[in-house]
Amino acid sequence: MASSLAVINCSQLVTLNGPARPRVGAELRDLQIINDGAMLVVGDRIDKVGLRAEIELLIENSYADSELIDAGGRVVMPGFVDAHTHPVFVGTRASEFEERAAGATYQEIAARGGGIQSTVNATRAATIDQLVAAGRRYSEWFLRTGTTTVEAKSGYGLSLADELKILRAIKQLDQETALRYVPTFLGAHSIPPEYRSRRGDYISLIVNEMLPQVAREELAEFCDVFCEESVFTTAESRQILSAARNHGLGLRIHADQLSLSGGAKLAAELRTATADHLEHTDGAGIAALKSAGVQPVLLPGSVYALGSSRYPKAREMIDAGLALVLATDFNPGSSPTPSMPMVLSLAATHMKMLPAESVTATTVNAAYSLGRGDEIGSLEAGKRADFVVHDCDDYRDLAYFFGIEHPWKVFAGGRLAHQRASSGQ
Amino acid sequence: MASSLAVINCSQLVTLNGPARPRVGAELRDLQIINDGAMLVVGDRIDKVGLRAEIELLIENSYADSELIDAGGRVVMPGFVDAHTHPVFVGTRASEFEERAAGATYQEIAARGGGIQSTVNATRAATIDQLVAAGRRYSEWFLRTGTTTVEAKSGYGLSLADELKILRAIKQLDQETALRYVPTFLGAHSIPPEYRSRRGDYISLIVNEMLPQVAREELAEFCDVFCEESVFTTAESRQILSAARNHGLGLRIHADQLSLSGGAKLAAELRTATADHLEHTDGAGIAALKSAGVQPVLLPGSVYALGSSRYPKAREMIDAGLALVLATDFNPGSSPTPSMPMVLSLAATHMKMLPAESVTATTVNAAYSLGRGDEIGSLEAGKRADFVVHDCDDYRDLAYFFGIEHPWKVFAGGRLAHQRASSGQ
Repeated sequence: MASSLAVINCSQLVTLNGPARPRVGAELRDLQIINDGAMLVVGDRIDKVGLRAEIELLIENSYADSELIDAGGRVVMPGFVDAHTHPVFVGTRASEFEERAAGATYQEIAARGGGIQSTVNATRAATIDQLVAAGRRYSEWFLRTGTTTVEAKSGYGLSLADELKILRAIKQLDQETALRYVPTFLGAHSIPPEYRSRRGDYISLIVNEMLPQVAREELAEFCDVFCEESVFTTAESRQILSAARNHGLGLRIHADQLSLSGGAKLAAELRTATADHLEHTDGAGIAALKSAGVQPVLLPGSVYALGSSRYPKAREMIDAGLALVLATDFNPGSSPTPSMPMVLSLAATHMKMLPAESVTATTVNAAYSLGRGDEIGSLEAGKRADFVVHDCDDYRDLAYFFGIEHPWKVFAGGRLAHQRASSGQ
Repeated sequence: MASSLAVINCSQLVTLNGPARPRVGAELRDLQIINDGAMLVVGDRIDKVGLRAEIELLIENSYADSELIDAGGRVVMPGFVDAHTHPVFVGTRASEFEERAAGATYQEIAARGGGIQSTVNATRAATIDQLVAAGRRYSEWFLRTGTTTVEAKSGYGLSLADELKILRAIKQLDQETALRYVPTFLGAHSIPPEYRSRRGDYISLIVNEMLPQVAREELAEFCDVFCEESVFTTAESRQILSAARNHGLGLRIHADQLSLSGGAKLAAELRTATADHLEHTDGAGIAALKSAGVQPVLLPGSVYALGSSRYPKAREMIDAGLALVLATDFNPGSSPTPSMPMVLSLAATHMKMLPAESVTATTVNAAYSLGRGDEIGSLEAGKRADFVVHDCDDYRDLAYFFGIEHPWKVFAGGRLAHQRASSGQ
């Protein structure tokens, strides 16, 4: 018989129980919290959630040898699902960060060979073992801040061999760490310097060599493109994403981050799973996303870290009925944070989102955007037991107190994946 | 013989060795880093800092029984000195935080009895033991994020008995936890409702009853006033601070936070130790602070948490030769963060401060602003052994990667005060 564990004494058991689809409008605020709740986990699955008395009776009768986790009056929630990250690379960009503090812009740094290209150079030079070692550090950061699943993009290789190396590193991290990775192929992250004068050849490389090989080896579930006038045009993005669809990949797109370049409209045209960033998307773009059922993935961490104040129009999107997702955009250039609570803080203070809306956008809605809404993102019977005991008694504290790591214990698939040190005092 | 410990294998030993005064201009960037540095601590004091080989030889010859801390190629720095916090209160203000996300302003919430007053009500109703218990949670947060000394203000009592209760709680926390507290009396934080129609009586209470008693019991080293047209006018602030000076207290002042109300000029007139906030201070105010030798204490956490983009003019202040300090303003209303690395992040991304400048502003300059420049704030022989081993190999990472807790081990007075859990993976 599978081992079981019971979590009792939760001030709030934040279940997000609800319809089997992403939540929209007022549903975003409805967390289906059970006060003084409890949960029984059998093996790697949630068996039952309910009131403490109810679960204790069940344990007494049928699961007397359960391991007991006393949450001590803390909040218990699903692990965060981070639907947009770039977590596999070598080297930081702290020097460029310092240059930006000294006044240089992100675009100026990129123009002189810094930016994405500096990470590409370092990542190309690394072995897969070095990539996995670097990634392991960040997998720990994600777990420490309460995330149990990340979407993970390639895109720092930009050659067949190096993109495959990154995707294989992601696969290895998924197997070796307690964090779950959903791989996305992002060969179209940037045009590498050796192709600058012959862009078409790089598009052909992606379409004719990278995508077939990625699909054959089943190294990615999604394909993403950085759609921007100065990166990949809408025509190029359409070509790449259409090819990816023909290989059976789901579609995501970096859209309207630096300018209103038609990314949201292309997302609607192609009915991609998500359109990400959207800092410059206008009302027409929002309406197009709505009519096509595309989920927006908003990334306030990069707006913050670039020193901008142009946050995406979250309230307009919620009012339009979009099934909002929030993510970290963890990457070494524009968003060096793995922390979903930091994203909740930014959403509350700079995007007028209620903490409850942000919790939905970073759990169940994010899970649906990755095609995993039936597996993760809420605490419901049958789902994977990915949950976090946060060191507070009110879930709103996750958005309110910022700059600290809230989790007390993190469980992935029913197993302890991280726990806070006891105080040295 | 006192016990000794040796810290070796530091990628960067950030000493901040330098003149025995706060640093200005280009000095702010000069961290006096020793690469592959090491440090010998005897008892609660730093005995020697130097190159690894040098320290290892000293240990071999004279301190063979030293405890050895292998930093594993990490950064070692002085503990942060947080020169502006409000860390002793009961209850959070997560509800008001949520109301602000829903559109209410801080001023609207205060006008209907929320804001500071809601924390005053909860804090008045608490026993000293409850206050100390609440404060202990936050002392752990400060240590976890690398702070070893905080300036701690009263100000949520606003009656003789309750202000004394808070100051005594601060004293108890200083004695019982590994964190050091520098107490500041802030009876002039707000006019309590029972005095709204007779402000003069509250000023008299502060001047004639609170201050004498606080001084007699030696419960505070500094006196602070929230100087703002809508809180305490410059005339009232002058009266209170002058009385405090007569009792031997050092002076600090909340100045020009919500409007240009003359706080910086009053600080210059009274030659206070610090002028804090300064979001609205103009060039004339900056010049006045410079000529009077007042240290500015900038608090970007509250600008961020209030959803504002009006950060104080750090670069103008540095250019004017001010000895800048950065602090968290930790409090339950406008700045719910204990994290100095978060302040470094905000300063780099939103105030164009170099990470090195921020490190100086949060260590040695902060120490001088508290009259403790000879005790803490740098790693120099004779100073208290308050230091942090951060889990990175470049100090700039503290400003760059945000939303995580960087410290791997924290030492206060030569003793381990916090250490990170080992990974559960």
